[in-house]
Amino acid sequence: MLDVIETAKRAKEASIQALKLSTDIKNNALSKFAAFLETNKNEILAANTLDLNNAKELLKNGQITESLYNRLKLDENKLRDMIQGVKDIISLDDPINKTLWSREIADGMTLKKVSCPIGVIGVIFEARPDVISQISSLAIKSSNAVILKGGSEAVNTNKIIFSILSESVSTVKDFPQNLVNIIFSREDVTQLLNADDYIDLIIPRGSNSLVKYIKSNTKIPVLGHSDGICHIYIDSEADIKKAIDISIDSKCQYPSACNSVETILIHKDIVDSVFKKLIWAFKQNNVKVKVDDKLINFDDSLELAQEKDWKTEYSDKIISVKQVASLDEAVIHINKYGSGHTDCIVTENDNNAEKFMLYVDSAGVYKNASTRFADGFRYGFGAEVGISTNKTHARGPVGLDGLTIYKYKLTGSGDIVADFVSGKRNFNKN
Amino acid sequence: MLDVIETAKRAKEASIQALKLSTDIKNNALSKFAAFLETNKNEILAANTLDLNNAKELLKNGQITESLYNRLKLDENKLRDMIQGVKDIISLDDPINKTLWSREIADGMTLKKVSCPIGVIGVIFEARPDVISQISSLAIKSSNAVILKGGSEAVNTNKIIFSILSESVSTVKDFPQNLVNIIFSREDVTQLLNADDYIDLIIPRGSNSLVKYIKSNTKIPVLGHSDGICHIYIDSEADIKKAIDISIDSKCQYPSACNSVETILIHKDIVDSVFKKLIWAFKQNNVKVKVDDKLINFDDSLELAQEKDWKTEYSDKIISVKQVASLDEAVIHINKYGSGHTDCIVTENDNNAEKFMLYVDSAGVYKNASTRFADGFRYGFGAEVGISTNKTHARGPVGLDGLTIYKYKLTGSGDIVADFVSGKRNFNKN
Repeated sequence: MLDVIETAKRAKEASIQALKLSTDIKNNALSKFAAFLETNKNEILAANTLDLNNAKELLKNGQITESLYNRLKLDENKLRDMIQGVKDIISLDDPINKTLWSREIADGMTLKKVSCPIGVIGVIFEARPDVISQISSLAIKSSNAVILKGGSEAVNTNKIIFSILSESVSTVKDFPQNLVNIIFSREDVTQLLNADDYIDLIIPRGSNSLVKYIKSNTKIPVLGHSDGICHIYIDSEADIKKAIDISIDSKCQYPSACNSVETILIHKDIVDSVFKKLIWAFKQNNVKVKVDDKLINFDDSLELAQEKDWKTEYSDKIISVKQVASLDEAVIHINKYGSGHTDCIVTENDNNAEKFMLYVDSAGVYKNASTRFADGFRYGFGAEVGISTNKTHARGPVGLDGLTIYKYKLTGSGDIVADFVSGKRNFNKN
Repeated sequence: MLDVIETAKRAKEASIQALKLSTDIKNNALSKFAAFLETNKNEILAANTLDLNNAKELLKNGQITESLYNRLKLDENKLRDMIQGVKDIISLDDPINKTLWSREIADGMTLKKVSCPIGVIGVIFEARPDVISQISSLAIKSSNAVILKGGSEAVNTNKIIFSILSESVSTVKDFPQNLVNIIFSREDVTQLLNADDYIDLIIPRGSNSLVKYIKSNTKIPVLGHSDGICHIYIDSEADIKKAIDISIDSKCQYPSACNSVETILIHKDIVDSVFKKLIWAFKQNNVKVKVDDKLINFDDSLELAQEKDWKTEYSDKIISVKQVASLDEAVIHINKYGSGHTDCIVTENDNNAEKFMLYVDSAGVYKNASTRFADGFRYGFGAEVGISTNKTHARGPVGLDGLTIYKYKLTGSGDIVADFVSGKRNFNKN
């Protein structure tokens, strides 16, 4: 077993070789991977059963949560989706070697901005074994090298999927060895986070605490989101039915998703018309409702929210609701307590919507639509690297483009700066 | 005096208010700033004289370098350039609120990707007082808040320029107070680097050691370059005159610039035709030449290069020269010892040029042009935030766009995800 630094070094070398990869070679590697996954379905399910048996013990002892257990589990359907996911990436446009911009900066001197891979990407993920196939496929399509580290609870499933990946790409002529790599132990992660000489980007996929730990322990740029505290603001000019429908969908359609809503803010002028209906709808869906002191007397089932509730990602059938005096107060609350993920205004007033969408400083700002739409597939990206709450590089749902950067190619014929400084030559005007 | 965290908090609030800034208000603030700089020229020069007198002492004691002293110095010409720089930014396109991309993801649901400011930018710079006016103007034009920290050696000059800036923007109606801020002490820097709750990006402008220190001591993304180790590779099919001209320009036109060349690699087949001429040309320009053992016997004036020379940014009239057996060896050397800044091939062979520009993993890859062209103004960006050797967000010379990110605006009319999951509705195909 190579140590992590040696693995990272080789990945870096492979990333340079990968600069020459044609679209055909990359797609061929992905086709092989999809085919090998298909052929080895039973082996994957058997390895997953091993992990599930071990996880059952951990679940009994309370060492893992039920939702983590569920994410760990593969079945025929999930495997089919996994394979389809790889095939979908084949059909995406190659994001590399695109001329993004070009101009003649002076007579005979052409400057081109050309897309290229980032280099080596470290991916640290928990439980969900489909992350291996998804992120590796995206990395291959964008000519990046990748170093994968999965959760220990999925070790058998990860091992078999990685060995299938590794074997399938090795059958492809001119595909760089060491472009895909895996590491296993917790100590390896520490080394990985220190390998800033070789690794260009870390993508964590997992719990808040995982992402926060990583951000605090590396100099390498991190692409990800630590929290998904999403809001719905029900404006004084909201359509009541839309407000209820969107609230229920945003909370209940998949409560543990990062784009599900955690807090609803209701304008005081519409509280009497909307809140009782909302309580009823949440009751129907077994959602516990926490409220501020202004709303506490609306129903016996309500619980008083604490300060910490406004900054909690419940990831569960719990919602906090607060009355606000104005759109401004809603915006201030969201910018203070939110995580810059996705926030929605429900209103029939276009000016209010525009104001909300301008002032809320989040990756996604919605008018009259469920926060659950924040997703790369739903945005039409074809595949998703993850969702970012960063304010640099990539924000919101990140598609294949998030794994690219660019270089500038300048072509001259012996041109020197001294001629421009002396006034002998001039740069072209824009 | 506010503490840094309070300053950062207020800057964050100002950055939210700045989201509404019209192009006119921003340009008006910049016009006022340019005019006030003009009016207060003598005060600025007087403050600079104070700093220069203090610096003379430090220079005598060897506590600062001569090049730092020169960068510190303002004169009528530099001041005129500084004022012109602010005016130039007025004429640039407003980079904010541009719809970068838009599509109907499903019937009646429009998704727009819209450019927006990053938020709060911390700028840490040494010596050059023109950085205040340049970066503040770029921040204002892109609706970002800025917190400036200049070097202690320029404290008087920085104070007067900042007070002019602060006074001029305060005369503009609806311009957010606290959008521009300054801090002074070294302890303030430590606090600034820890203020990741409020600051979205750090831009260091200064020495390698400053940039490295910052990268190692903050969780906030850093945009900058730590080294500028640029290369010229003279291919076996190079035009000799171009090779000499480009080498001399890249080294001598401004040796202390980050885009000046540090190492020249010469293909073995062309060494005999080019190297003696190169030695002669460097002698004429008082450049000391260090070489590998294969080249050492060409001239008595040559010095043997050590391993560390290949990774040294001399920033001075010193060059290291190495013989390589092939283009591949040149590429490997550059990717190993270079800093990913700017590297050039001199060749008349298009295939070799293409190969070099593909495999060299640098922000700028040039064919037959001086490395000194790596500059935002020369690239036609109108103004420059700095040069980045990052592999994420922005790479190479960074224009105004480097201070922007985007948000996704989704407009619906009560749309919920459940309808798509149930198959009642479908997303549009790309």
